[in-house]
Amino acid sequence: MAKLETQPLKGFRDFLPPAAAAREKVLGTIKTVFQTYGFLPLETPALEYKEVLTGKYGSEGDKLLYSFQDKGERDVAMRYDLTVPLARVVAEYQNELPMPFKRYQVAPVWRADRPQKGRFREFTQCDADVVGTSSIFADAEVIACFNTALQELGIGEVIIKINNRKVLDGLMRAAKIDAAKTADAIRALDKLEKIGEDAVRGELASAGIQTTQADELFNLLGQGLEDPKDVLGKLEGIDGAGELAELLEVLLQMGVKNYKVDLTLARGLDYYTGTIFELVLPDAREFGSVAGGGRYDNLVGMFSRPAGGQAGKKVPAVGGSIGIDRLMAALTELELVKLDSVSDVLVCNLDESLSEKYLQIVGQLRAIGVKTDFYYEAAKLDKQLKYADKKNINFAVLVGSDEAKSGEATVKNMKTGKQEKISQTELTNFLKSAIINT
Amino acid sequence: MAKLETQPLKGFRDFLPPAAAAREKVLGTIKTVFQTYGFLPLETPALEYKEVLTGKYGSEGDKLLYSFQDKGERDVAMRYDLTVPLARVVAEYQNELPMPFKRYQVAPVWRADRPQKGRFREFTQCDADVVGTSSIFADAEVIACFNTALQELGIGEVIIKINNRKVLDGLMRAAKIDAAKTADAIRALDKLEKIGEDAVRGELASAGIQTTQADELFNLLGQGLEDPKDVLGKLEGIDGAGELAELLEVLLQMGVKNYKVDLTLARGLDYYTGTIFELVLPDAREFGSVAGGGRYDNLVGMFSRPAGGQAGKKVPAVGGSIGIDRLMAALTELELVKLDSVSDVLVCNLDESLSEKYLQIVGQLRAIGVKTDFYYEAAKLDKQLKYADKKNINFAVLVGSDEAKSGEATVKNMKTGKQEKISQTELTNFLKSAIINT
Repeated sequence: MAKLETQPLKGFRDFLPPAAAAREKVLGTIKTVFQTYGFLPLETPALEYKEVLTGKYGSEGDKLLYSFQDKGERDVAMRYDLTVPLARVVAEYQNELPMPFKRYQVAPVWRADRPQKGRFREFTQCDADVVGTSSIFADAEVIACFNTALQELGIGEVIIKINNRKVLDGLMRAAKIDAAKTADAIRALDKLEKIGEDAVRGELASAGIQTTQADELFNLLGQGLEDPKDVLGKLEGIDGAGELAELLEVLLQMGVKNYKVDLTLARGLDYYTGTIFELVLPDAREFGSVAGGGRYDNLVGMFSRPAGGQAGKKVPAVGGSIGIDRLMAALTELELVKLDSVSDVLVCNLDESLSEKYLQIVGQLRAIGVKTDFYYEAAKLDKQLKYADKKNINFAVLVGSDEAKSGEATVKNMKTGKQEKISQTELTNFLKSAIINT
Repeated sequence: MAKLETQPLKGFRDFLPPAAAAREKVLGTIKTVFQTYGFLPLETPALEYKEVLTGKYGSEGDKLLYSFQDKGERDVAMRYDLTVPLARVVAEYQNELPMPFKRYQVAPVWRADRPQKGRFREFTQCDADVVGTSSIFADAEVIACFNTALQELGIGEVIIKINNRKVLDGLMRAAKIDAAKTADAIRALDKLEKIGEDAVRGELASAGIQTTQADELFNLLGQGLEDPKDVLGKLEGIDGAGELAELLEVLLQMGVKNYKVDLTLARGLDYYTGTIFELVLPDAREFGSVAGGGRYDNLVGMFSRPAGGQAGKKVPAVGGSIGIDRLMAALTELELVKLDSVSDVLVCNLDESLSEKYLQIVGQLRAIGVKTDFYYEAAKLDKQLKYADKKNINFAVLVGSDEAKSGEATVKNMKTGKQEKISQTELTNFLKSAIINT
């Protein structure tokens, strides 16, 4: 029999213990911040009816769906993001849910994309959204929430880039770009950071936008990050400028000051209708934005359309997503993720006849929450300590026949090599405080 | 346009906030216990090469795989359990992993099963396994770990049913059942609790086992839960009895006493080779076993076979799984899950001109970790309090123009209806201690 494949599929990843533990810790911090902001958890399935997902992400997105026929010949697809399932949930359970509905969801999504550095076919999104209100406070709260999450991770400086799709549309109009070409222009603009102004101009030309119009547009858009005051002065008379100004004011009232307006910020998804934002790390620019989102007032209503009816109920919504993969990469780059120990103590096995004593110590430590391993076999001590090292365990507990008699234990600090004898009765307290102090 | 489907697929579920929050809390407790026992987290992909999964679960299992061709024409399948991906990971990264490798994984799995009460096509498994040791301490530690997890959830009485596949095989031999028919007999026996002895006898007959052999087998197996001492006396001379006795002894040394031997316990999966166990709740018997597992010494090695080589390296392993769905159902039945509040405080919006004050209070509360909601619109108070009720929020904070002037706030306890005026400077401390005491 040939050897079975043991690698994960291309674009998919295994997270071995140190990395998986670091991810779990970061996700825990993010979830706690989401809860502090009043967001409630939601879980939706990995698989959805295909028709639920198609037509929401643009034609590009439809191509990237993992879709197939299940055994009941239903067309199904794997979750592409967490926003469309949220829209479905709101339509299905609208009478049960508190409105506005503030929910968070942390879950993997799947895209049959071409794998490349930092881009995967399976990745985890951390979303927080507010559905059912047009209030600008909701836009501000979502942005403040993501900002706080990054601060809590101790990630250093964060810049919030803010723009508004209505403003973008207004600027297109001011540049005399045909309304029918606005969507194409926004998709081109979204690639600005990646492909540069010349290439974007090329795409604008392909979309039938004249050079003079493109000139005027780039003139109006400016060069990226700008001081809010400068931008707002410039935007007088442009649609959406008032909404943008209001958002910036509320953010200040919330104590959020680390933002800039970036009129060139477009965001890729078709469904945004107002506020758009991205959070970037100036100390790790190569990772691009680690979080982003915006207002999407037309998506949720698509699921509330009555059968055969006309345009659906409008259900305004605003939200965003932290990309945990980019975030972990950035945290690692900034040396803020320690792939540190998950277990605290190894109780070594020096003498098979003492196993009952070992198990007693192990049980006492676990009972007070100390993460404790027991070496099953009375192997050479060297081998046992190597295991502790490989698991990045901080303390080894050694009880040989002498110590068993004297009621003592030797505690070896695996990082410093220092050893000391402790009475077995004091062992649990000693280790508990030693662990807190490492 | 017709109304879009808004229900989840058959056999799949949405978990709305109260249920999702309760699940998250239970999973958090389980993960913490796993860590206390020295298990490290692992994450593997939702999709695997199909060949990785086929042939490991029996022909029945193969039929239940969600499999399809991806856009690169690879045959892929969705994760059916967490054990086979673990086996793949151990083969792929054997030199990196600390051995024995103790890992936990909490993740959804997918089976294209016929949905019925309590059985879903997507469900979450919580697994803990030890790979790379034959030590009976590993068997005992896995069982003790699951037992502790259930205790930590405060689930009341738990009975651990223990058996051993070697013992079962030995009893089959003692009943003169042909070795070639043992696997069929075990699969029949596994259904005993569900279909009863008569139906199992029918299946044994279909497998070509004579009535006298079946009589002798049932005579040897006994009637289910038995006192270890009685069983061990009876099993003298049967293979695997020594191993079983050793396990029971080590469990006692670990302080685990709530077990019984059940020689009729068979477990469905083909791959078990020694210890098998299930944890059941005598107060909620209708939910069957909420956790179970066993030793499987031949599975992991299947992935380590060299290309074209002979039988692979043997990699012994033992582990198990908590079924979170059954567990949540049992916890709910026993009224041990409170679908309680996720948010603590609603800061009401009584006067638009006071929004800066409201945001200041909201910010102060969030900064000390109080889960705080702000009502975005200055709607009627009644509507705002209804929102708080629907979200099961404990306290509402009311600041009108009078309170704004006097520097006070009214705190309304949403459960008791009691209101009191508090100075705004004392508000955060007051609420923090009030929340701790609810």
